[in-house]
Amino acid sequence: MDTWLESVYSDGTAAFVSQPAPRKGDSVKISLRMYEDAPVRHVLLWYLRNGTEHLQAAKAVRRERGLVYYEAAMPVTEKRMQYHFYLVCDGCVYFYTQRGVTTYMPDRTYDFVLLTDYVQPAWVKDAVFYQIFPERFCNGDESNDVQPGEYAQEGHPTLHMQWTDRPPSYEKGRCLDFYGGDLEGIRQKIPYLKDLGVTALYLNPIFRAPSVHKYDCVDYFHVDPHFGGDEALAALSRDLHANGMKLILDISINHTGANHRWFNRDGMFFDTSEGAYHDPDAPERGYYFFGEGNSYHGWYGNDNLPTLNYTSQALRDAVYRGEDSVLKKWLKPPYSIDGWRFDVADTFARNDDVQLADELWPEIRQSIRAVNDQAYILAEDWGDCAASLQGDVWDSPMNYYGCARPIRQFFGQDDLLMSRHPLLKNVGYKMTAADLEARVMQHLAKLPWAFWENQFNLLDSHDVSRLHNDPAIPPMAYRGAVIFQFILPGAASIYYGDEAAIGGRLGSNEGCRYPMPWGEDFQSGWMYRLYKTMAHLKGEHEALSLGGMKFLYADGYIAAIARFWGDEAFVAVLSASQRTETVRLPLGAVGAAGFDGRVDLLGEPMDWRPLDGRSVSLTVPAGTCYLARCQMK
Amino acid sequence: MDTWLESVYSDGTAAFVSQPAPRKGDSVKISLRMYEDAPVRHVLLWYLRNGTEHLQAAKAVRRERGLVYYEAAMPVTEKRMQYHFYLVCDGCVYFYTQRGVTTYMPDRTYDFVLLTDYVQPAWVKDAVFYQIFPERFCNGDESNDVQPGEYAQEGHPTLHMQWTDRPPSYEKGRCLDFYGGDLEGIRQKIPYLKDLGVTALYLNPIFRAPSVHKYDCVDYFHVDPHFGGDEALAALSRDLHANGMKLILDISINHTGANHRWFNRDGMFFDTSEGAYHDPDAPERGYYFFGEGNSYHGWYGNDNLPTLNYTSQALRDAVYRGEDSVLKKWLKPPYSIDGWRFDVADTFARNDDVQLADELWPEIRQSIRAVNDQAYILAEDWGDCAASLQGDVWDSPMNYYGCARPIRQFFGQDDLLMSRHPLLKNVGYKMTAADLEARVMQHLAKLPWAFWENQFNLLDSHDVSRLHNDPAIPPMAYRGAVIFQFILPGAASIYYGDEAAIGGRLGSNEGCRYPMPWGEDFQSGWMYRLYKTMAHLKGEHEALSLGGMKFLYADGYIAAIARFWGDEAFVAVLSASQRTETVRLPLGAVGAAGFDGRVDLLGEPMDWRPLDGRSVSLTVPAGTCYLARCQMK
Repeated sequence: MDTWLESVYSDGTAAFVSQPAPRKGDSVKISLRMYEDAPVRHVLLWYLRNGTEHLQAAKAVRRERGLVYYEAAMPVTEKRMQYHFYLVCDGCVYFYTQRGVTTYMPDRTYDFVLLTDYVQPAWVKDAVFYQIFPERFCNGDESNDVQPGEYAQEGHPTLHMQWTDRPPSYEKGRCLDFYGGDLEGIRQKIPYLKDLGVTALYLNPIFRAPSVHKYDCVDYFHVDPHFGGDEALAALSRDLHANGMKLILDISINHTGANHRWFNRDGMFFDTSEGAYHDPDAPERGYYFFGEGNSYHGWYGNDNLPTLNYTSQALRDAVYRGEDSVLKKWLKPPYSIDGWRFDVADTFARNDDVQLADELWPEIRQSIRAVNDQAYILAEDWGDCAASLQGDVWDSPMNYYGCARPIRQFFGQDDLLMSRHPLLKNVGYKMTAADLEARVMQHLAKLPWAFWENQFNLLDSHDVSRLHNDPAIPPMAYRGAVIFQFILPGAASIYYGDEAAIGGRLGSNEGCRYPMPWGEDFQSGWMYRLYKTMAHLKGEHEALSLGGMKFLYADGYIAAIARFWGDEAFVAVLSASQRTETVRLPLGAVGAAGFDGRVDLLGEPMDWRPLDGRSVSLTVPAGTCYLARCQMK
Repeated sequence: MDTWLESVYSDGTAAFVSQPAPRKGDSVKISLRMYEDAPVRHVLLWYLRNGTEHLQAAKAVRRERGLVYYEAAMPVTEKRMQYHFYLVCDGCVYFYTQRGVTTYMPDRTYDFVLLTDYVQPAWVKDAVFYQIFPERFCNGDESNDVQPGEYAQEGHPTLHMQWTDRPPSYEKGRCLDFYGGDLEGIRQKIPYLKDLGVTALYLNPIFRAPSVHKYDCVDYFHVDPHFGGDEALAALSRDLHANGMKLILDISINHTGANHRWFNRDGMFFDTSEGAYHDPDAPERGYYFFGEGNSYHGWYGNDNLPTLNYTSQALRDAVYRGEDSVLKKWLKPPYSIDGWRFDVADTFARNDDVQLADELWPEIRQSIRAVNDQAYILAEDWGDCAASLQGDVWDSPMNYYGCARPIRQFFGQDDLLMSRHPLLKNVGYKMTAADLEARVMQHLAKLPWAFWENQFNLLDSHDVSRLHNDPAIPPMAYRGAVIFQFILPGAASIYYGDEAAIGGRLGSNEGCRYPMPWGEDFQSGWMYRLYKTMAHLKGEHEALSLGGMKFLYADGYIAAIARFWGDEAFVAVLSASQRTETVRLPLGAVGAAGFDGRVDLLGEPMDWRPLDGRSVSLTVPAGTCYLARCQMK
């Protein structure tokens, strides 16, 4: 492919779209850029209007930093405006979509998309999230700790742990090893989090439930008393907002615990005179799937987690539609949360008999947005969910698919899902940089740009072993993974304790839920410095929040990714190669002349030299990763 | 890529899916095959159920012709079952979707898809259509010819042509050069068509209208009297069905003519006391978009074609919903047509103010299928319309996108749409075989297999210049294009007269609507023999109707495509190369040992020799194309 093709670029930012969040009736100007000496005779903007193709000739409107910008107008007539570009050269027409340049006319899968009536949660794109598993973060109020034996059942004792203990393994369905973490503890750590560079919290479930993880909720309407109750949440929210920080909560509305007030199987929390299990006439009976002999549908066959039945209109009212519904209550003052993270969203309201997800999600979205039009709707989905990221369903998945899964594999782990299958783990495939690029771009390139910016990029969570606990991951690879996570468009999420090099075990959920090691001097460690540096860079440089993104290189086991905005450009270089390699990086494609100095932003020396005015040569020692700022032309 | 990967194959035919048209609750067996010595340790079937990924280990169940078949069961629980395959080797897991093999986990765009409640028009996959522009095919009844001056208007005389005349050029919006073709003429030619190998007719519009093309309909409820009226259609349909042939009709329900009974602007056919234009209280007033001062919305600004307004429920009843609606009338006896071809379907019921297409098409589909569940729903769409080919909208587009456009370009023409744009024509790009494969596969690989079989594959139509009229297309390239059209899954459509090497002019619609040259001895010509041979091969060999399809080769300017079923395999070899080249064709991937002899099915000598037991070497002279039968292992 001709060298100039490496410079062809557009995206959905304000640098290339005159009105990135247009209204119907607007006319937007769409731009594309490339090297100013590219042998292009004409550029055309292709777009779809009323089902038919339109072509609009673009004009070269300005030259800047060695790049020429072509621009064409597009009327905004529909909810979804799809477009791509034709580049006419002597002897060839090239086509450019979000997936790249082809010599053949591409299908519409990877078109650029502008959404007309989509309200973007504008605070997400520069957010640094901090995910907290509340029971394990900080015990701010010992008076609310679980009492000895409080939740014990036959064969399942309540364990009362010392903060420095390692969590025990547990039997499926019982997590009763309590450390005492609570919301007051989180509130007390706001200064710590702010100093780290955190701008938003994502808390794992906090509503009343017996287990430590609280996915077995017994009351959606109250914060667990051992976490401090509703008042503690109001206080936390107030103080977070006073510090300019956002808060999102985690919930499973797919199922409740068997001891939820609505179901109340065992009478553990509520009198058995109420609830659907013991009373066939209870108003909540229709909330669940009951069968013969009082049998019921449990999520994935788990009878401790009865599945909710959304054919019930009353349930819809209770969960999201009513003004006093679960989802609305917590969005309103004094709790005023800034979004919801939905557990098992991929499978929500789907089972072999009843498929309601396509109907429910838009309703849920509308209910949430009616209270707070900036609320973030974050969904647990580990796979390709692009169909749900087009404006009507979610704002983002937990981005395992385009972030944690590929980058962990690139640096040598098995894929997070494949590693769970006996025939797929330990195959030992060494993922290439081209694979990495394909994994990332096949995800992003199916999304409207606003959804690139909405991505919740993560490495670790409460559901996967922590990357740094894997002895096969050297510190430099870990650094590379974090750089990757932070350079992707969207928010970056730090899982509590990663910055503290927290202990952990591989292969179990308990192993990634160790208590936060407050007693240790982790703030002098390299992981703390890494996260703090990255978080502050993201907060301080618009290139890392508003900027465009482009793979500059992906060959062998080395990838390079640029982000850029206005006068700034940053480049991540990620090597999983076992040897020193010299690569050509076309920095000119982002308007840069070279790197800004001989040391990267994390203190790593860089051996580079200019090549031809539009690219540099960089010698990358085995397995070395960089985040470098560019010197612009 | 390792050689064995060339053999990895599955599709949606009964050879690989135990129940290609499953019902909910079925368990289907899904198979995959590859060379029997492929270094694969495990094969897994990946599928989606209730939104989550499932993996099912497959077992090697049989070996046949050098290929091993792996099989796994999949429960059919949803309307749409998506799946692909994992191939586990030492040191690598490969992924296989309809788009091919990757080393990275693919997104879900190109998954195999089984539809659970889709009723396929089963007669399409082995159909050879013959498209007729009725005014120009055969005058079977001179008594119904247009009378001199009948439709003349100021400045637009009616022309009465001799059958051997060339059609004149015409001004936009007036096509009044009549030859006298009619339905009786078609009926009389049924023996001719049957002998040619035709199994289905597609007629351009026949409802009453002044123009020769009749897209300016004045009465949806009656066949034009100059075509013989309703009785002639009943007679034609009766005789076609008696001969085992199908019939589909063309209609634009997006707009009517300005002189349609419902609109009746000029009083040309109906008294001005009726119709929406002169009577604001007419029941049909709501069928159109009227504005101030009796202005109205004309399709693409053409005031002779007022656009229909489907916000009107009465219009929906009149067009498709009522038992006496337009669409249902002609599906019922005595007309009993076998499907509808919808003009400008891509833009139907879409305009900047009202977007109803997504709502209307499923309703239209249901209305049609309620009368005849085998009716074919064929839509005019020239682009990527995969989203409308998933079971709820159309059965097929006029397949310009994946057939006429790429194959014409492969053999040297400009793309059919790009050639209409002054900046895009005459660029002179020579399309590669890899481009051709990408164009075809990006289309098909987004479709459930039933829709591969539904494709209406065409080279020519009433809307494009005939390929053979282009002096730059040598006979061998034309042969290659026809072979391509017939080897693709789906129906092949012959545009009337192509078999007769009919005359024509480039660059105008009139130029592709010459009268059928019945007076000439075209049946001894190579084009007639080519079409007759291809049509009969398709009718006689299940491989060309039921069979799977695979690109065996696509490099430089030579492509090879196989179709195969049971004991048979056919291979098309298409060269657009300007020199003699020797290529390796992996016939073993379809279970074949070599070609069946030294001459192809069209009499072309073939210079080939076996290589390694699973491939042959073929020397292809410049620009030579073959259709060869294989000798199976």
